[in-house]
Amino acid sequence: MSQPIRVTIWNEFRHEQTNEKVRAIYPEGIHRAIGEGIQGDYEIGYATLDEPEHGLTEEKLGRTDVLIWWGHKAHKEVNEEIVERVHKRVLEGMGLIVLHSGHFSKIFKKLMGTTCNLKWREADEKERLWVVSPGHPIVEGIGEYIELEQEEMYGEHFEIPQPDELVFVSWFEGGEVFRSGCTYHRGQGKIFYFRPGHETYPTYYNEQVRHVIRNAVEWAAPTGREKPVYGNYKPLEPIKAKQHS
Amino acid sequence: MSQPIRVTIWNEFRHEQTNEKVRAIYPEGIHRAIGEGIQGDYEIGYATLDEPEHGLTEEKLGRTDVLIWWGHKAHKEVNEEIVERVHKRVLEGMGLIVLHSGHFSKIFKKLMGTTCNLKWREADEKERLWVVSPGHPIVEGIGEYIELEQEEMYGEHFEIPQPDELVFVSWFEGGEVFRSGCTYHRGQGKIFYFRPGHETYPTYYNEQVRHVIRNAVEWAAPTGREKPVYGNYKPLEPIKAKQHS
Amino acid sequence: MSQPIRVTIWNEFRHEQTNEKVRAIYPEGIHRAIGEGIQGDYEIGYATLDEPEHGLTEEKLGRTDVLIWWGHKAHKEVNEEIVERVHKRVLEGMGLIVLHSGHFSKIFKKLMGTTCNLKWREADEKERLWVVSPGHPIVEGIGEYIELEQEEMYGEHFEIPQPDELVFVSWFEGGEVFRSGCTYHRGQGKIFYFRPGHETYPTYYNEQVRHVIRNAVEWAAPTGREKPVYGNYKPLEPIKAKQHS
Amino acid sequence: MSQPIRVTIWNEFRHEQTNEKVRAIYPEGIHRAIGEGIQGDYEIGYATLDEPEHGLTEEKLGRTDVLIWWGHKAHKEVNEEIVERVHKRVLEGMGLIVLHSGHFSKIFKKLMGTTCNLKWREADEKERLWVVSPGHPIVEGIGEYIELEQEEMYGEHFEIPQPDELVFVSWFEGGEVFRSGCTYHRGQGKIFYFRPGHETYPTYYNEQVRHVIRNAVEWAAPTGREKPVYGNYKPLEPIKAKQHS
Repeated sequence: MSQPIRVTIWNEFRHEQTNEKVRAIYPEGIHRAIGEGIQGDYEIGYATLDEPEHGLTEEKLGRTDVLIWWGHKAHKEVNEEIVERVHKRVLEGMGLIVLHSGHFSKIFKKLMGTTCNLKWREADEKERLWVVSPGHPIVEGIGEYIELEQEEMYGEHFEIPQPDELVFVSWFEGGEVFRSGCTYHRGQGKIFYFRPGHETYPTYYNEQVRHVIRNAVEWAAPTGREKPVYGNYKPLEPIKAKQHS
Repeated sequence: MSQPIRVTIWNEFRHEQTNEKVRAIYPEGIHRAIGEGIQGDYEIGYATLDEPEHGLTEEKLGRTDVLIWWGHKAHKEVNEEIVERVHKRVLEGMGLIVLHSGHFSKIFKKLMGTTCNLKWREADEKERLWVVSPGHPIVEGIGEYIELEQEEMYGEHFEIPQPDELVFVSWFEGGEVFRSGCTYHRGQGKIFYFRPGHETYPTYYNEQVRHVIRNAVEWAAPTGREKPVYGNYKPLEPIKAKQHS
Repeated sequence: MSQPIRVTIWNEFRHEQTNEKVRAIYPEGIHRAIGEGIQGDYEIGYATLDEPEHGLTEEKLGRTDVLIWWGHKAHKEVNEEIVERVHKRVLEGMGLIVLHSGHFSKIFKKLMGTTCNLKWREADEKERLWVVSPGHPIVEGIGEYIELEQEEMYGEHFEIPQPDELVFVSWFEGGEVFRSGCTYHRGQGKIFYFRPGHETYPTYYNEQVRHVIRNAVEWAAPTGREKPVYGNYKPLEPIKAKQHS
Repeated sequence: MSQPIRVTIWNEFRHEQTNEKVRAIYPEGIHRAIGEGIQGDYEIGYATLDEPEHGLTEEKLGRTDVLIWWGHKAHKEVNEEIVERVHKRVLEGMGLIVLHSGHFSKIFKKLMGTTCNLKWREADEKERLWVVSPGHPIVEGIGEYIELEQEEMYGEHFEIPQPDELVFVSWFEGGEVFRSGCTYHRGQGKIFYFRPGHETYPTYYNEQVRHVIRNAVEWAAPTGREKPVYGNYKPLEPIKAKQHS
């Protein structure tokens, strides 16, 4: 692909405006910190909940190769029409990277077909994400594990379809485990769920986390192909006439 | 499981009332032909679209271990609330067997997260379903393939998530192939999609097809377990106090 | 299946004869403790390394529906011919349950095609096996997790093919995770790898561990089918004569 | 990856020397036709059975990113030591593309852990390879299907592990189907099995087939990572002393 990958980073962008602790960490918003972390090779755009059409117009999505999604407390405010629009684009081939609390976003639940429920706890505890698929392009350049000194805990059972490829499994200090890096194919699109990134920790400044997101952008970029043909279809081979009973 | 498996067979039951050709084949409805084909070991009930709540009351679904679903031209008439109810029961562990044109049912599309689109053709052509997972319990007692002299064609690409296990692949006389037997796990529930069964052919009288449906009922029956715990969760291990930066 | 499932439990049976600590826990051998744990519904037999043909004669394997395998320090002493014999039987449909250090057995490595290498540590630490496939028959009757107060640690990366179904993920006190319950289909046979059971801990007396092994026996029992047909094969449909260029 | 991918194409190279029909199609050998088909972006080398060490010295394999394998009637002549060497390199991350009759090569059988048996027939019949994973990078630029006017038939059941991703399914004129494009991860290596390419047909001159092989080379190229750590491992977290019973 000679053209740079066009990435749109979507953020709910509410915590940063209402919670001082979060604003202190992400003064320009989580989306900007993520964008800063992957800049260089991509054409990066941003979109947030409170923009018209949540910043995700037909035109903007049409020019998006990979969409990154961070949302948390306002999932319900995301308009159904926009969810349908993103869903359609994923099936057409747009990559989708769903981060952390995005597990409960409408778009992720719609694509998974399940509740995407899990256990959780905010206790400033250690997370260690172990690589379990060492040859996967998403872990290129990543060591045996990524250690985050403080994160929110997410624990199993995580009610998702079995991932096509399980890339990371997290260990938590408090005694739980979690499938933290999961890939899916839906239609022509590729989806990566990546667990870390609670808003009260500086996770998106972590160089390893940023590296994984960059790798995921490369992996999720669309495969150039014509759309599959559906519907009524003429035979490619002759069909013998049969005697009806 | 010492109690017999409780099976509910749901049928749209419209073609049989409006199309003479279909009625000639299935005078009492497709659901009755399917039920006749699996009778003996199970407690079998029926439900159809035009009953109140489509015959799928909370109480009826609560007493259903495995739900079999046949629908075609009236998918849109299925009430969203009933779809939600069935969806919830699947995630709780109820087995679901989706037949033929049920690929476009609301419940299947919701569970898959994709359009479930495909190619199709009605041309009285031969279908041969090849077993590709020879050790799977769904093909117990089934030979190398099942041959159906006349069926509707369904062709790839079938827009579904990659199945957890691919059990059958169909060959069609007109030149297409299709992933005809697909298993999925969603929540605690097991799902089997089985392709054959267009309303104008006597497919549900075929002994091999019936045998597959019986096997699928056994396979999809719920696993006895408490519901997983979700939500806020106390640590199982002590968490060290950390210095906030 | 009206006949009881015929289970053969194979044990290396060396530690118990040379190490007092192990003998104190398993005076009659690990195999007998496992057999005691699953008795009731099955026809149970035993076989050990130092018997002629390691106790796995053609005749014995021919009457085995599910083989359970525990080995550790004498993997190299297992005769290649017996490995081939077991391999052949698995592909024919015999179930295989590989326990703990059996990950390094010749038969498991041959079936996996990889080194099956891992991290390990003997430090009397806590293991907690979390259920990640809540609808799988192998976890019927099992709670959210199984806790073992002291076990050997096995850590990722575990060099195995991605399991067909990942059933358990372990959390270890020392900071690691492990894919502890993994299913595979190979030929007509079903394989379950189950991690716990270091010889210096009384793990096979744990009621939950025994319950998982019982469930796995049921799950791995052969599916009754004719052997697939291989080799040269006559066309099922006419082939048009073509002009050679 | 700024360096060109280094591809080694291995060919048994016997049919071309003993069979006039094959020589007429591939006068310089199947390997050269494959190499011609993917040339441009890669550093391409060749190796054949009758060279010392089958052309696969430690040094040559050490400089190979992706190995392509074509063999047929002389699988047995491939030295075990070379098989081990290739196996080790795949687990270390070297990509492997196994073509057509390579399904019965020692290296493929060793990596799969099964017999890799199948049905076959030489009857100059039509094959149509349908894309079933439309977003996979291996089908970038490929249409709905690839049609080959004449090929050898391979039919199910194909005794392989369920592929990580099923990319192509073939339809054959004589009535069979086959899983024709299958991906696997083993260790850090990626493997692609691609069915077409019987020696008596000009399949490796087909532009679509060549395109798939090019895509597969890109997909199978190694992911840059340190080798995973195995063996005895110190705890990352403190382990509480426990009272032994």
